[in-house]
Amino acid sequence: MKLHFSKRAKLFKTDALKQLLSVVSKPDIISLAGGMPAPESFPVELIQKLSAKVLNDKKALALQYNKTPGIDEVRETLANWLNKQYGWKLSAENVMITTGSTQAFDLIAKIFLDFNDKIVLEDPSYMGALWCFDTYKLNYITVKSEADGIDINELEDKLKSNKKIKFLYIVSNFQNPTGRVIELSKRRQLIDLANKYDFLIIEDDPYCHLRFEGKAVPPMKTFDTEGRIIYLSTFSKILAPGLRVAYIAADKEIISWLANAKESADLSSNTISQYIVNEYIKGEYVEDQIKKIVKIYKPRYKTMLKSLSKYFPKNSYWTEPEGGMFTWVELDEAIDTEKLYSKAIEHNVAFVPGVHFYAHKDVKNTMRLNFSNVPEENIEKGIKILGKLLK
Amino acid sequence: MKLHFSKRAKLFKTDALKQLLSVVSKPDIISLAGGMPAPESFPVELIQKLSAKVLNDKKALALQYNKTPGIDEVRETLANWLNKQYGWKLSAENVMITTGSTQAFDLIAKIFLDFNDKIVLEDPSYMGALWCFDTYKLNYITVKSEADGIDINELEDKLKSNKKIKFLYIVSNFQNPTGRVIELSKRRQLIDLANKYDFLIIEDDPYCHLRFEGKAVPPMKTFDTEGRIIYLSTFSKILAPGLRVAYIAADKEIISWLANAKESADLSSNTISQYIVNEYIKGEYVEDQIKKIVKIYKPRYKTMLKSLSKYFPKNSYWTEPEGGMFTWVELDEAIDTEKLYSKAIEHNVAFVPGVHFYAHKDVKNTMRLNFSNVPEENIEKGIKILGKLLK
Repeated sequence: MKLHFSKRAKLFKTDALKQLLSVVSKPDIISLAGGMPAPESFPVELIQKLSAKVLNDKKALALQYNKTPGIDEVRETLANWLNKQYGWKLSAENVMITTGSTQAFDLIAKIFLDFNDKIVLEDPSYMGALWCFDTYKLNYITVKSEADGIDINELEDKLKSNKKIKFLYIVSNFQNPTGRVIELSKRRQLIDLANKYDFLIIEDDPYCHLRFEGKAVPPMKTFDTEGRIIYLSTFSKILAPGLRVAYIAADKEIISWLANAKESADLSSNTISQYIVNEYIKGEYVEDQIKKIVKIYKPRYKTMLKSLSKYFPKNSYWTEPEGGMFTWVELDEAIDTEKLYSKAIEHNVAFVPGVHFYAHKDVKNTMRLNFSNVPEENIEKGIKILGKLLK
Repeated sequence: MKLHFSKRAKLFKTDALKQLLSVVSKPDIISLAGGMPAPESFPVELIQKLSAKVLNDKKALALQYNKTPGIDEVRETLANWLNKQYGWKLSAENVMITTGSTQAFDLIAKIFLDFNDKIVLEDPSYMGALWCFDTYKLNYITVKSEADGIDINELEDKLKSNKKIKFLYIVSNFQNPTGRVIELSKRRQLIDLANKYDFLIIEDDPYCHLRFEGKAVPPMKTFDTEGRIIYLSTFSKILAPGLRVAYIAADKEIISWLANAKESADLSSNTISQYIVNEYIKGEYVEDQIKKIVKIYKPRYKTMLKSLSKYFPKNSYWTEPEGGMFTWVELDEAIDTEKLYSKAIEHNVAFVPGVHFYAHKDVKNTMRLNFSNVPEENIEKGIKILGKLLK
């Protein structure tokens, strides 16, 4: 039997990720390629306790279908929690639960994007978002990333020459892959540009709480004057990704359209997990959990920086983010990190070649290094091996 | 600010469902409109126990991301469980976890369907599947439903005059909305037709275990000779829908493509819930739970049939399924059940007007009645009121 797939089917990413996953599952590999939180940070006992509480309190209700945009009570808790942190004025109707932020990408794409539509991406951008957007056959407009976030001048130039842009997708804090944070005044400028040139901003902010040092910058959504920001975040990085609880905060009309799309995507997200998140916030466990995570990640990050200084060629550049899960390295222009990757695997070290993060796959000499899920001694070992291969 | 939605955005269903949901949440309503299992059937204590066991045994692993097509161990448990029930020969690679069967519809559509592609639907068909397929702008070929399943002669006629059909979507047991079961010889004939005319069959089978009487018929997949059947089922109806654990059993190549699509849909399904289902099967709790459910549904179903006989006009027809969650009523041709619905709501009774289950919305005199989630006294009261309104 010959299978007759859709045109779109061929657009889903396969090889790159499967290669990465298959490598990660080799037991003796030092993988700096991952994007996972450290499992030793997961509060297993707390989740056990909250799960028991939820089933005791809510009983069958915790096991039934829930409403498509999320459980009313949980949406309200999230709205209040966000309002408290950022001085926002959300109500429950501004918040929607998604099955991971990956689902949010797909719902947003379904609701806003037609074939050949224009969206703006920072270069480099989060690979998982690209994988989703790639299947909608868009017209990508890329703007380079600077140390303090997207290049505003280049962005405005491109906005002038490209009409009808649907949205800018951007990670505002400790970007994946670069670890960069958009500087405060740039955040305001981005809103001004969105208002002036009539586009939306997808502010993807999974890492904001993972700050090791320095002062937090308010989310862009804080400065949103016209409801143009669709804010995405998740409990995958500050509680546990296996719960698959992420959320969108946006204009009510947008939420309502996204909920229509979610109806045909998975009907509703996991009920118990939403209630667990509800208890996690209301029981005020979040802050301690974040401290616990930062305590694990910060020394790993320090080891990463120290090792890069010690072992990497002097003409390499790398970011020194104040938080998050990744460092980004730019190497000598002659180096192709996909070739380096094959050699590194032979020496049992993995990383993600940076090319996967570029919308047009046109930059070859970069790499993303993960430190959140690698013990210090392995970080040093892995970077040492990579450094040797580079020399 | 004016929002610029995609063409597709307008294809997502909104009003019909929202009306149904808003009505269902009125406290004094007798809703025969639902499609939910009875919450009193949910094994709250068992799930509490299994959840604690999973977190004790698997610890952080139960909270981490899991592989996109599902946890290996759970896929293997499902394959073995299906093999044991039906004599199939699946391996773990033939099975994939989805976040509800709703997700399966969307992934299948993404992988197989281009604009204007032809699919065959039984008339009437499950509304939730229609809602998803509608957003792909397909060419629907409908074939009428008979008491023993889809009309095979009409199907073959339409297959002769319509080339390049992608698939037939069909619910094989206790169909939603009719409650009908495809008779054994028709199942074999459907496979023969699929082989002869080169199309796939999406066999959606969420209700197979909810049999009150009569003898089970093997799933169509049992007779699949060329790997043409994509079999969907779920733990929503035999454990708890809030877990959002459903599964696909199919040809390995198809599973691999569907997993590529799931990567960009939600990355992976809830980890703890998958492990709970794993323990539910391996601990051999399924059979007792099904008995418990049937014990609740059967008297409700009997009350439904008795009340229909007693109160509905003599020229009405209704199905008498041997299981499932729904009865289907065909009324005098002059009756428009959408008009009846407005009146019924004034009298605090809800049902689903049958028109929503027809791909072309061209039949007006039918209704779907749910008995799984309504106490006996309310079934009788509700049917009595509807009967009065009909006379």
